[in-house]
Amino acid sequence: IAKEVAKLLEMKAQLGGDEGKHKFVLKTPKGTRDYSPKQMAIRERVFNAIITCFKRHGAEVIDTPVFELKETLTGKYGEDSKLIYDLKDQGGELLSLRYDLTVPFARYLAMNKITNIKRYHIAKVYRRDNPAMTRGRYREFYQCDFDIAGQFDPMIPDAECLKIVHEILSDLQLGDFLIKVNDRRILDGMFAVCGVPDSKFRTICSSVDKLDKMPWEEVRSEMVGEKGLSPEAADRIGEYVQLHGGLDLVERLLQDPKLSQNKLAKEGLGDMKLLFEYLTLFGIAGKISFDLSLARGLDYYTGVIFEAVLLQQENDHVEEPVSVGSVAGGGRYDGLVGMFDPKGRKVPCVGVSIGIERIFSILEQRVEASEEKIRTTDTQVLVASAQKKLLEERLKLISELWDAGIKAEMLYKKNPKLLNQLQYCEDTGIPLVAIVGEQELKDGVVKLRVVATREEVNVRRESLVEEIRMRTSQP
Amino acid sequence: IAKEVAKLLEMKAQLGGDEGKHKFVLKTPKGTRDYSPKQMAIRERVFNAIITCFKRHGAEVIDTPVFELKETLTGKYGEDSKLIYDLKDQGGELLSLRYDLTVPFARYLAMNKITNIKRYHIAKVYRRDNPAMTRGRYREFYQCDFDIAGQFDPMIPDAECLKIVHEILSDLQLGDFLIKVNDRRILDGMFAVCGVPDSKFRTICSSVDKLDKMPWEEVRSEMVGEKGLSPEAADRIGEYVQLHGGLDLVERLLQDPKLSQNKLAKEGLGDMKLLFEYLTLFGIAGKISFDLSLARGLDYYTGVIFEAVLLQQENDHVEEPVSVGSVAGGGRYDGLVGMFDPKGRKVPCVGVSIGIERIFSILEQRVEASEEKIRTTDTQVLVASAQKKLLEERLKLISELWDAGIKAEMLYKKNPKLLNQLQYCEDTGIPLVAIVGEQELKDGVVKLRVVATREEVNVRRESLVEEIRMRTSQP
Repeated sequence: IAKEVAKLLEMKAQLGGDEGKHKFVLKTPKGTRDYSPKQMAIRERVFNAIITCFKRHGAEVIDTPVFELKETLTGKYGEDSKLIYDLKDQGGELLSLRYDLTVPFARYLAMNKITNIKRYHIAKVYRRDNPAMTRGRYREFYQCDFDIAGQFDPMIPDAECLKIVHEILSDLQLGDFLIKVNDRRILDGMFAVCGVPDSKFRTICSSVDKLDKMPWEEVRSEMVGEKGLSPEAADRIGEYVQLHGGLDLVERLLQDPKLSQNKLAKEGLGDMKLLFEYLTLFGIAGKISFDLSLARGLDYYTGVIFEAVLLQQENDHVEEPVSVGSVAGGGRYDGLVGMFDPKGRKVPCVGVSIGIERIFSILEQRVEASEEKIRTTDTQVLVASAQKKLLEERLKLISELWDAGIKAEMLYKKNPKLLNQLQYCEDTGIPLVAIVGEQELKDGVVKLRVVATREEVNVRRESLVEEIRMRTSQP
Repeated sequence: IAKEVAKLLEMKAQLGGDEGKHKFVLKTPKGTRDYSPKQMAIRERVFNAIITCFKRHGAEVIDTPVFELKETLTGKYGEDSKLIYDLKDQGGELLSLRYDLTVPFARYLAMNKITNIKRYHIAKVYRRDNPAMTRGRYREFYQCDFDIAGQFDPMIPDAECLKIVHEILSDLQLGDFLIKVNDRRILDGMFAVCGVPDSKFRTICSSVDKLDKMPWEEVRSEMVGEKGLSPEAADRIGEYVQLHGGLDLVERLLQDPKLSQNKLAKEGLGDMKLLFEYLTLFGIAGKISFDLSLARGLDYYTGVIFEAVLLQQENDHVEEPVSVGSVAGGGRYDGLVGMFDPKGRKVPCVGVSIGIERIFSILEQRVEASEEKIRTTDTQVLVASAQKKLLEERLKLISELWDAGIKAEMLYKKNPKLLNQLQYCEDTGIPLVAIVGEQELKDGVVKLRVVATREEVNVRRESLVEEIRMRTSQP
């Protein structure tokens, strides 16, 4: 009932908007938000860390339109397709907002016949999901994707993707984390040896994917009850999906009498062994967990899959660290580009997507808690006046500073009070004030005041730019 | 007929997409495009210049969602409203893609009760217009907006907006340009004294706005024929809109027997005089032309309006420089925020929007013509091997370099040929190669090769990072 009332109220409010100018609802669409200058400052820090890492690994950058032809997205996301935003048919092509950056990337490769590229793409994607904004789940959100496309020797690009996740999460200092890895081939092999019919691989895989949110008993009853799997097969799966470990587990499963007989599983396990060798050389194997319960939702993965989770640190007394949610994920998708190519030519791809919104939520909460003061501008100096009737002089001086590349502001008042000008610096964190007064003008100097210490020095006008630069240069 | 055939073919292609996987049209939606790494490199240069300028003037940055409630955009754009993209009604709120960044900004101010801010916003906006992509007109395009909101002394923020346009166009070195200014109050006053009825101000203003694309005779016949203005009134307007000049023209019009009697015109001319004084102090009055034919399309302007045009330079023999189109525009809109505020409280605003797509087209053509080689990555060094079986050593070394913050790449092959590795550097502009070989490993050194000069030196492993930094540091 409450829901229905809310709906009716919303409808009423919308109708009201048509009646009178000032009656509409003043809000952003459901599941979206504005970013304030302070939030933007945090967002830019995070983006910088991520872009720096992507560039360190030699990635180029591309961009694609926010919408695609509807048919470009059709048949790529399985059950999730219902979450795609469509545009209204206003004549012409049928369009949809992009759901991720991976499908547009594959379309871009096929369209431009590119068989070899390492690129990143940072942009917003759109999902008509149930938003949970406090936990960083939105209908409009950023993805930061890094992908390597091309025919290469096994597991070298895959290992680099994991290295990148490790670098970014370490760099952002989000606390302890774990990167779970698995392989779709191992999963499929496991399903086969457990007695899952081929036709049920996908749907049973979806059930396994829920293990991070549901206990095994519930997942099992979904498999048996809803999806008609035999209880014996489910129990056999139940044994495997409990397993997680490192290289030792890979070795053990390579000896597993059932799995080792399955071609797909054997291939996957062999590559997993290689992956762990490379991760050891990268010095990051300690943070990687080979986890047979990791399944990933999307249809298009064909090989290695992975997901990074932050570990809760508050509960130190809990034995097993509890994960607070995924902050990065990805995997290998060797078939997607071929779906777009007129001749079905394949371009093997592997990539990672950083879930920026959750990271951003964590950092925002941390900033709130620490009461750290975040500057939202870079202004070096405020051009101020000590007396009235000096607007012209302020305009002349600030123009000189701008032209010399100094970041400068002034109050947009003809005759501002000095106190108000100093207060503005306190409020916004501007470190210096360049004060013009009648005496200073006569003497050919400007009074430079350091806001923090209240120290004041007269600086000759021709040395002012140099002096400001020196006093505001980052160490 | 050709149009109809094209439509049918498109429909057929779309239908085909549903039949077989590989039959759909491989393209981006009409009026949109992808950005390749090379285009992104140029785009980032332009953005950097613009953002640097906005930050130099102390602007904060915000972001808003790509779509707004449909009603938020309703009634803000006059006739252009038909160009708004609506989203399909999939249940819930009715949404539209943003048409510009100004209306979302005003909505943001009203929603958060902000009465005072200087912010920039760089984002894509959407218009279902007829695209002319070679001339930089798209359906999805970037706007770079800088706005100052707040109650201030007259023309100080307005002058700063013009200073910003001047700085950005100078900095980007696009050739000679002119910034036309006018004032909606002067236009309205002029219409009044010419005998235009109040009810026709807006529509006659739209006609005047076409003067940059149409000769006066056509505009006149539109006014008289389509819009029912008296020929006498049209002819009086015709005399005024020919006028353009500097402070001298402002002074002359202040003496104009008819205009000087009109309250609105007098206010506008008084402020225009003040504006020219401030622009003179900023040293940019020479590039500013007070132009009575400038009208600007959008409904929401209330005071100063302006538009920057690039001047064609090829035709040096032509007496009057010909404009090749607008690259920036803006003005004062003191009523827009009040349309969103429940109590109609006004927040005066003035702002400028840089038309990045046209600038980008010009720079892209220039790069093509000059055959300048643009690097699309920042990679400092390629980690290479001289012999086979050194993959592990390459992985170890590249990991050390990444961890030290060096931008490094390697080929994803187990045993790449040295020649191929060197060729990759030539192709992508990587300046250095760090070569590991058996002898180097024994000696604890790495062979560092400078790609341009082919010079090779052995560097001790522990000094490698420092050596790479030194050799690739920007002067």
